[in-house]
Amino acid sequence: MKVFIEPIGRLINEFTKLPGVGAKTAQRYAYKIINMSSAEVSEFAEALVRAKSEVHYCKICGNFTDGDVCDVCKTRDKSVICVVKEPKDVIAMEKIHEYNGVYHVLHGTISPMDNVGPNDIKIKELLSRISEGGVEEVIMATNPDVEGEATAMYISSLIKPLGVKVTRLAHGIPIGSDLEYTDEMTLARALADRKTI
Amino acid sequence: MKVFIEPIGRLINEFTKLPGVGAKTAQRYAYKIINMSSAEVSEFAEALVRAKSEVHYCKICGNFTDGDVCDVCKTRDKSVICVVKEPKDVIAMEKIHEYNGVYHVLHGTISPMDNVGPNDIKIKELLSRISEGGVEEVIMATNPDVEGEATAMYISSLIKPLGVKVTRLAHGIPIGSDLEYTDEMTLARALADRKTI
Repeated sequence: MKVFIEPIGRLINEFTKLPGVGAKTAQRYAYKIINMSSAEVSEFAEALVRAKSEVHYCKICGNFTDGDVCDVCKTRDKSVICVVKEPKDVIAMEKIHEYNGVYHVLHGTISPMDNVGPNDIKIKELLSRISEGGVEEVIMATNPDVEGEATAMYISSLIKPLGVKVTRLAHGIPIGSDLEYTDEMTLARALADRKTI
Repeated sequence: MKVFIEPIGRLINEFTKLPGVGAKTAQRYAYKIINMSSAEVSEFAEALVRAKSEVHYCKICGNFTDGDVCDVCKTRDKSVICVVKEPKDVIAMEKIHEYNGVYHVLHGTISPMDNVGPNDIKIKELLSRISEGGVEEVIMATNPDVEGEATAMYISSLIKPLGVKVTRLAHGIPIGSDLEYTDEMTLARALADRKTI
C-alpha cells in the first residue's frame, strides 16, 4: 500500500521541485494546501499560472515585466546603466530605493567551465544600447565571484574605448557584521580599498 | 515604483501562506516558478487544485482518501483500531510498515484552553465503530503532550467498560539519540517504563 494517496503524493512531488524543499517540507506544504479553502487554493493555482504566463523580459533591459518594456526603462534616468546578472538582482538593487538609473540584465555571466561564452549572454545588446548614445556611466553590478569579476572586466574592456565611464560596486565589510566573522578575502579587499575619513 | 511587478508580487504573497515560508523564501520559490516551463507550471497548478478537490476524509475512519472509504479501511484487520489526532499521523504510522490494523482519526484533541471539548472531536464515531463489535484492541496514539495524554485517558475511560483492551504507544528514549541530550521528562518515563532484558 502506498503511504500517500495519489493526489497528495503528486502535490508533494511538485513541491519538492522548489529550491531547498525536501520530502518533509513538501509534505507540510501539501497538508497546508488541503486545509485551505477551495477558493484559496484556486487563487494560489491561478497566481502560479499567471506569474508564468504574464511575466516576460523587458525588450530593452531584460528585466522582468508584464508589458513590453519594464517600468524602470519607461521612467528613469537613461544616462546610467547598472549591469546585473539576473532579473532578481534588479529587485535586490531596487530595494535600496536609492538608484535612479536603468538596468541591463546579462542573463548569465561568462563561465568557460559551464560553456558560457561572451556570445551566450546579453553583451551585444548592452553595447548596442550604449552605441545609441546618451550613456554616461555603466555600473558593473555582477556578483563578486570569479565569473562575475571576469564578466565585469571583460565588459569594461569593451566599453571603456567608447568613452563611457565604467564603475564597479564597492566590496568591503557588510554593514552590521563583525570584523571577527568577516572572511579573509573580504577583509583584504576592505583594507586595500580603505577610504580617508 | 513597486519593487515587484504584480504577477510576481502576487505569487510571492501566495507562497508566504505556506508554513514557515517568509518573504525571502517565497521570493526564491517565485523565481523558480518563472524559470520553469509553462507545462511544468500548469502541472503544478493542477496538482494544487486536484489535491484540494479530490482529497476527502474517509467516512469510516476520517483518514485522507480520494474515494469514499480509504484503502486502509477497505483492506486491513478491523480488530485493532489505532486512534490518532490528525490524518497526517496516519501517514507517520503507515511509514513504519509494521501496523496492519485500521485507524480512527479524531481530528483534534480535547483542549479546554482552546474550547475543544469531547463533543468537538470524533469520539462518538469511535464509540459507534466499537459498538458494532469485532474490535479487540484500541491503540491510543495521540501525541505525548498534555492534550494528547488527557484525550487518551478520557477515551480509554469510555472504552474500557465495553470490554475492549486499550493500549498506549510506549514513551522513552528515541532510537539513535543520546542519553545526554534526552530531556528529563522522557528519561524519567524511560526509567519508569524500563523492561527486563
